[in-house]
Amino acid sequence: MGSKLWGGRFVGDTDPIMEKFNASITYDQRMWDADIRGSKAYVKALEKAKLVTTDEMKQISQAMDQIHEEWSKGVFVIKAGDEDIHTANERRLKELIGAPAGKLHTGRRRNDQVVTDMRLWLRDAIDKLSENALQLISTMVERAAVEVDVLFPGYTHMQRAQPIRWSHWILSGAIAGTPLDIDRELLRSELDFDGISLNSMDATAQRDFVAEFLFWSSLCLTHLSKMAEDLLLYSTKEFSFITLSDAYSTGSSLMPQKKNADSLELIRSKAGRVFGSCAGFMMTMKGLPSSYNKDLQEDKEAMFDCYDTVNAVLQVTSGVVSTLQVNQSVMEAALSPDMLATDLAYYLVRKGVPFREAHGVSGKAVFMAETKNVPLNQLTVDDLSALSPLFGQDVSSVWDYRSSVEQYSAPGGTAKSSVTAQVEHLRHWLKKQSRGFNKACK
Amino acid sequence: MGSKLWGGRFVGDTDPIMEKFNASITYDQRMWDADIRGSKAYVKALEKAKLVTTDEMKQISQAMDQIHEEWSKGVFVIKAGDEDIHTANERRLKELIGAPAGKLHTGRRRNDQVVTDMRLWLRDAIDKLSENALQLISTMVERAAVEVDVLFPGYTHMQRAQPIRWSHWILSGAIAGTPLDIDRELLRSELDFDGISLNSMDATAQRDFVAEFLFWSSLCLTHLSKMAEDLLLYSTKEFSFITLSDAYSTGSSLMPQKKNADSLELIRSKAGRVFGSCAGFMMTMKGLPSSYNKDLQEDKEAMFDCYDTVNAVLQVTSGVVSTLQVNQSVMEAALSPDMLATDLAYYLVRKGVPFREAHGVSGKAVFMAETKNVPLNQLTVDDLSALSPLFGQDVSSVWDYRSSVEQYSAPGGTAKSSVTAQVEHLRHWLKKQSRGFNKACK
Amino acid sequence: MGSKLWGGRFVGDTDPIMEKFNASITYDQRMWDADIRGSKAYVKALEKAKLVTTDEMKQISQAMDQIHEEWSKGVFVIKAGDEDIHTANERRLKELIGAPAGKLHTGRRRNDQVVTDMRLWLRDAIDKLSENALQLISTMVERAAVEVDVLFPGYTHMQRAQPIRWSHWILSGAIAGTPLDIDRELLRSELDFDGISLNSMDATAQRDFVAEFLFWSSLCLTHLSKMAEDLLLYSTKEFSFITLSDAYSTGSSLMPQKKNADSLELIRSKAGRVFGSCAGFMMTMKGLPSSYNKDLQEDKEAMFDCYDTVNAVLQVTSGVVSTLQVNQSVMEAALSPDMLATDLAYYLVRKGVPFREAHGVSGKAVFMAETKNVPLNQLTVDDLSALSPLFGQDVSSVWDYRSSVEQYSAPGGTAKSSVTAQVEHLRHWLKKQSRGFNKACK
Amino acid sequence: MGSKLWGGRFVGDTDPIMEKFNASITYDQRMWDADIRGSKAYVKALEKAKLVTTDEMKQISQAMDQIHEEWSKGVFVIKAGDEDIHTANERRLKELIGAPAGKLHTGRRRNDQVVTDMRLWLRDAIDKLSENALQLISTMVERAAVEVDVLFPGYTHMQRAQPIRWSHWILSGAIAGTPLDIDRELLRSELDFDGISLNSMDATAQRDFVAEFLFWSSLCLTHLSKMAEDLLLYSTKEFSFITLSDAYSTGSSLMPQKKNADSLELIRSKAGRVFGSCAGFMMTMKGLPSSYNKDLQEDKEAMFDCYDTVNAVLQVTSGVVSTLQVNQSVMEAALSPDMLATDLAYYLVRKGVPFREAHGVSGKAVFMAETKNVPLNQLTVDDLSALSPLFGQDVSSVWDYRSSVEQYSAPGGTAKSSVTAQVEHLRHWLKKQSRGFNKACK
Repeated sequence: MGSKLWGGRFVGDTDPIMEKFNASITYDQRMWDADIRGSKAYVKALEKAKLVTTDEMKQISQAMDQIHEEWSKGVFVIKAGDEDIHTANERRLKELIGAPAGKLHTGRRRNDQVVTDMRLWLRDAIDKLSENALQLISTMVERAAVEVDVLFPGYTHMQRAQPIRWSHWILSGAIAGTPLDIDRELLRSELDFDGISLNSMDATAQRDFVAEFLFWSSLCLTHLSKMAEDLLLYSTKEFSFITLSDAYSTGSSLMPQKKNADSLELIRSKAGRVFGSCAGFMMTMKGLPSSYNKDLQEDKEAMFDCYDTVNAVLQVTSGVVSTLQVNQSVMEAALSPDMLATDLAYYLVRKGVPFREAHGVSGKAVFMAETKNVPLNQLTVDDLSALSPLFGQDVSSVWDYRSSVEQYSAPGGTAKSSVTAQVEHLRHWLKKQSRGFNKACK
Repeated sequence: MGSKLWGGRFVGDTDPIMEKFNASITYDQRMWDADIRGSKAYVKALEKAKLVTTDEMKQISQAMDQIHEEWSKGVFVIKAGDEDIHTANERRLKELIGAPAGKLHTGRRRNDQVVTDMRLWLRDAIDKLSENALQLISTMVERAAVEVDVLFPGYTHMQRAQPIRWSHWILSGAIAGTPLDIDRELLRSELDFDGISLNSMDATAQRDFVAEFLFWSSLCLTHLSKMAEDLLLYSTKEFSFITLSDAYSTGSSLMPQKKNADSLELIRSKAGRVFGSCAGFMMTMKGLPSSYNKDLQEDKEAMFDCYDTVNAVLQVTSGVVSTLQVNQSVMEAALSPDMLATDLAYYLVRKGVPFREAHGVSGKAVFMAETKNVPLNQLTVDDLSALSPLFGQDVSSVWDYRSSVEQYSAPGGTAKSSVTAQVEHLRHWLKKQSRGFNKACK
Repeated sequence: MGSKLWGGRFVGDTDPIMEKFNASITYDQRMWDADIRGSKAYVKALEKAKLVTTDEMKQISQAMDQIHEEWSKGVFVIKAGDEDIHTANERRLKELIGAPAGKLHTGRRRNDQVVTDMRLWLRDAIDKLSENALQLISTMVERAAVEVDVLFPGYTHMQRAQPIRWSHWILSGAIAGTPLDIDRELLRSELDFDGISLNSMDATAQRDFVAEFLFWSSLCLTHLSKMAEDLLLYSTKEFSFITLSDAYSTGSSLMPQKKNADSLELIRSKAGRVFGSCAGFMMTMKGLPSSYNKDLQEDKEAMFDCYDTVNAVLQVTSGVVSTLQVNQSVMEAALSPDMLATDLAYYLVRKGVPFREAHGVSGKAVFMAETKNVPLNQLTVDDLSALSPLFGQDVSSVWDYRSSVEQYSAPGGTAKSSVTAQVEHLRHWLKKQSRGFNKACK
Repeated sequence: MGSKLWGGRFVGDTDPIMEKFNASITYDQRMWDADIRGSKAYVKALEKAKLVTTDEMKQISQAMDQIHEEWSKGVFVIKAGDEDIHTANERRLKELIGAPAGKLHTGRRRNDQVVTDMRLWLRDAIDKLSENALQLISTMVERAAVEVDVLFPGYTHMQRAQPIRWSHWILSGAIAGTPLDIDRELLRSELDFDGISLNSMDATAQRDFVAEFLFWSSLCLTHLSKMAEDLLLYSTKEFSFITLSDAYSTGSSLMPQKKNADSLELIRSKAGRVFGSCAGFMMTMKGLPSSYNKDLQEDKEAMFDCYDTVNAVLQVTSGVVSTLQVNQSVMEAALSPDMLATDLAYYLVRKGVPFREAHGVSGKAVFMAETKNVPLNQLTVDDLSALSPLFGQDVSSVWDYRSSVEQYSAPGGTAKSSVTAQVEHLRHWLKKQSRGFNKACK
């Protein structure tokens, strides 16, 4: 029963649309270098196993070097039938050395080759991302060091909470940025090719390293989306805490006065893009039979796009953070006495009042100030005494933002000593990373 | 080869953990009413097909009424072995009338019964959601009608753009709220049981109506997450455009002065939850073989949770919107002359200057004002003339926020007439919905 | 406090990485035609509003035609600074006609232009997808018509259930394919530009049409992933129900005997990819402030990739379905007497036994046959009589697959008449679509 | 301007729907034990800081023990106003000891308390999951050890590829199961409370440990979904490689002969559910401002549901794997000579033919066998010699499945020695885990 009954247009050879649908060369050629490195290593193993002669090994290896040069110079020509980077390099090898090229794939599945190349590529890619992440963290740390004396309101629920140091905020972002590096370690250990796969079926179909890379990237960009949201808030006219550099802003095609923080909006948006890749890939993997299925081909575009996105986001964020201007006077003017209500409660706690009760008294003081329409620090000692007999003249010491901030000297707190310690800790950590990184790159 | 070699604890009967894993009665009992209605309709069809006698039909139908009463009064007893609501009702039917109960399921798969019950339940659920959505939209429309004279800054990129009416903003939210209602129509037509399934295989495994409900709910809550974000911004100390009612705020356990907009934060968060259900369900459906597979059991908890969440969000949002206080003077004080830079360009356009050129001139005026450190409207006619000879004394007419707003009288614009037209349009639409809704509920 | 303290490399002008991060020209140039059509329509509106003269309108319109020709011929040159397709076309317009080009954007935001272009592009794209979807459905319907006499096992839970027609299975897929078309109608009505946006704020930030397109595409590909899973099962050696055409298969680089159904695996995988885009876009939209934010730029790549993917999947699926070979004898040999156990129960139902009781008797018969190690239809009337006195010689009529199938003659069933009716229904529906489609394309 | 204008029903107090929307006590009471442990530790820190006296410390601690007992016995009464587990326990403490209860929260935010309790709870939960994961892996390993001599077809692309050991397949699943344990280590190190948070802002808003738990669980269940898919395939009538125990199967309400592998379908489905929670939570976190926002409340239900789901899946999978019956004769009958085509190629490789060429010759042999309509191993030496002069009588040695399998003796391969080594490796690993686990539980 011929195909003509139903379709008509499909005869004999591969449907050209199917061919295009099936091919991955348009995107997987990015792995040309990893593919060549992998093959050069493999041919040595073949020689050792006496499956190629030493001469053949050298011949293949030298031809591979030539192919490497062709790719480097941008003169490698992809031909019709080059379905993916692996067939393209193998086809070229055959053109260069003829029959012996056919020996390179003895005992090696395409699927093993693909997964090895991906791991090699990703290892380099993660090094690059780590470098950019360290650059970003370093930018934040140095900025925090220089601007340690700037106070501004801390917010919870988007409402002013307590005075904190600007550097305290910056460092909370820097700490959030560190997961990527952990990821590098995790993947590096997994990518350690001295180790071997425990089970050949698992090795071929395993794409956990891709899924994990996509998820860690998503988590990293989610952190940066939160930092971008904060900076967008701070750069509104209403907050005016920071001014973005022109290098990271754009104008409006309609409104001449506008200066938009496009960079921050793009940073905020990319968490969705990368997590979308992760969600798509997990859905593709769900319920697949074991061993290799072509469905896994989705791994590469996801991995590449994720890398490109994270790489750009890290660099742009470094740029934004290093060039934005802090409007210290605006920040400090935003501090208001009601943000010291907790300090007022602690004043009573220090005089022996249980915290919950002190919290209640301070709440009444806030209400009294609102009723009298005065700032909290303008309540007289008499006013306060009506709420608790423990208030005395020394309550005036409460109304100082810097003193307030200095109370939080526990590790991780917002006191100058504590923030400085965080700076030192991160500087130390960065130095260590950078050493490990240089070593790893050798 | 016995099981004892490997497991030990599993023998003979169903593993109790498996039984619990398999059972759905804990959540699907919510469909008790739909299940009874479905069975009462089905027994009539059986009578018509002469598969039960008229007497049997009446006996079954009356027993079903009794079961209905037991559920209504909360006295229905679920017994061990009642795997789902369908077996529970059938088991009870048998207790009440004995053998004839066995006839009820002639020619009816459990899977058909499940999907029919779900559709019946969802139809009612969507009516309830529609009612709450209409209440929300109505709240917004009436609020927009009353507060039509309040101006405030319109924002793009979180930066002040042009003056707009507060009501214009409210109505943009109300319009975003309408998709849910479209959804209702879509599902209603699909749930029209006068129609029949075109293909029995498709009917059993089809869960598009669940997936669509989950997605439309996600889209609806995404809109509300955006509205919540706006209101959170507007309720920061820095914006102070609105004050949330105490009924929708909470205090802080630590900071006495805090008043947190928890309601808005919860509204913002729920888009994630509902879309998560959608993502999970799509992933579960991916790659399933056709016809019924137990995997589809995931549909019900997702559907119920989605309904509960959307239902609560709609009601809380109505409450928040109806009770928040608008701080008109703060809003209007936030308008600034630079937001009229576009109007300055249009002034030149009206004198024949191409828009791009006029935009450039206005941009230079903004820069000049910044340099001179004066507001844009304080530039003199001489100042402006240096930028374009077309500026004259009549430029003073530009510096009026109300006039500016009134220019946008095209449909959908922010002029009073236009906003009032939107109010009227939505009132009319609401009246129509409410009529259709009442009719549908009969 | 200069930027040099922290960053060093960022000075003055836009950071080149930021510029690249911000630009969309690499992918949005696909909308060149929509952009030109939009501008040609807009300039007519400007003339009508007397904001450009008739001469200017003609001049702009003719230059736009020339730009159209440049794009068509592939000679349009993108220059540095062409951030997106809109600025590229405008820049070229200015080169061609000078100053009057500046008038084209009077009263028109970039954001409005972007969203209009996207809707125009998507309208065409959906027409193309609809065409391919109709081709696929048509292929399935005609195949179902020709092969209506092939029986094979229906499966639920991946276990053989009851005999059904092969055509019944095909049509269940065809019906699942129709949602895309509904989508077309939904979007078409939304894209009806005779209608107007009710609210200008909503119009600019609204990307529901993108989100809906992504979701409908996901749902459509989820259906196709399920059909692909069925066909992969059917093409295993163990099932051998179908043989895939060589045009849609590939070989193995390692195993000479392998013929892999890569096409079906790719079809199965793409649901994940497209839903990933949907998930990513929803996450990006979550919690954005109202009106335009640059985050929305994620919409275009998602939309384009989704279109390309669905387009390829539909065409490849058409090819696969039209060229696969049905192995009728294998399919029919897979039918086994135990699949008629339900028919055995119905035999008793027709003699007045309640279904649940008849189901029990039939279950005992299955158990008896297993115990005696004979096929179910080899039980003697005596054997059966021991289970129910109602069994007689006429029970032999039960053991006929074709008769069994013919019982399901209700609409949507698997009887020949019913399947033929489904074919006719779909043919009629296709004819209607195709008429509507031709009309819509004019 | 009063609320009555728009809403009517909302006055003064908290809207009851809002109250319910806001409360988390219905689900977070699961953390009662963690909350009490956390408070008992905190009060000791307060004593050390001289913020409570030793007497107060003892009083609080003893009252906490009493509350613990009330929860354990199920007699703790939740009262109106108990918003979450933390307020419930604090309210009860105040009932028991009065004023000093108010001191417990000195210097401790609710948000810190919540996050500490979650970490404590999760640490225990992960121990439980690890225990169940180890049980599953152990079941698989022991089963692999016993059934090491069973051969069956390995599949790639769902097509028969090469003969492998059944135990090789089982172990590939066991290895895929190990990630969860890595997760335990990762989280354990993060949950090491000897360490301290580097930054207080980060500590409060950080929910990475929840996101990571959700993702690792998703990845783990995705692996199990793949294993379930394999087992579903193997349990179809067509494969008949395995028979599921009755304890993990269910019958059909309609078809008496059916035995459905519901357990496997449920296992397959849960990857979607858990990843849905992950997707939802990531979307909720995206773009949140830093520090605490109520949106984070979504963390707890997601975490609990994920734990319950993974816990049930692990146990049911252990049950399924330990009780399923392997149909060795069917498995081995499914091996066919064409699966040895690769071995035929290797025969030539061993005689010096490059692999690609040998692959081609073997492909021709497959084609020749198909044309002659004989199994591959029935080709005569003469037949084969026509394809390559290197074929000799010794080619007969190729046609032995056990010899074929024994070739793959490299680590991770399917030879008996290699599979046995995997068993030993995993047994060793399990012993190590179990030791670490016991130690951790002390």
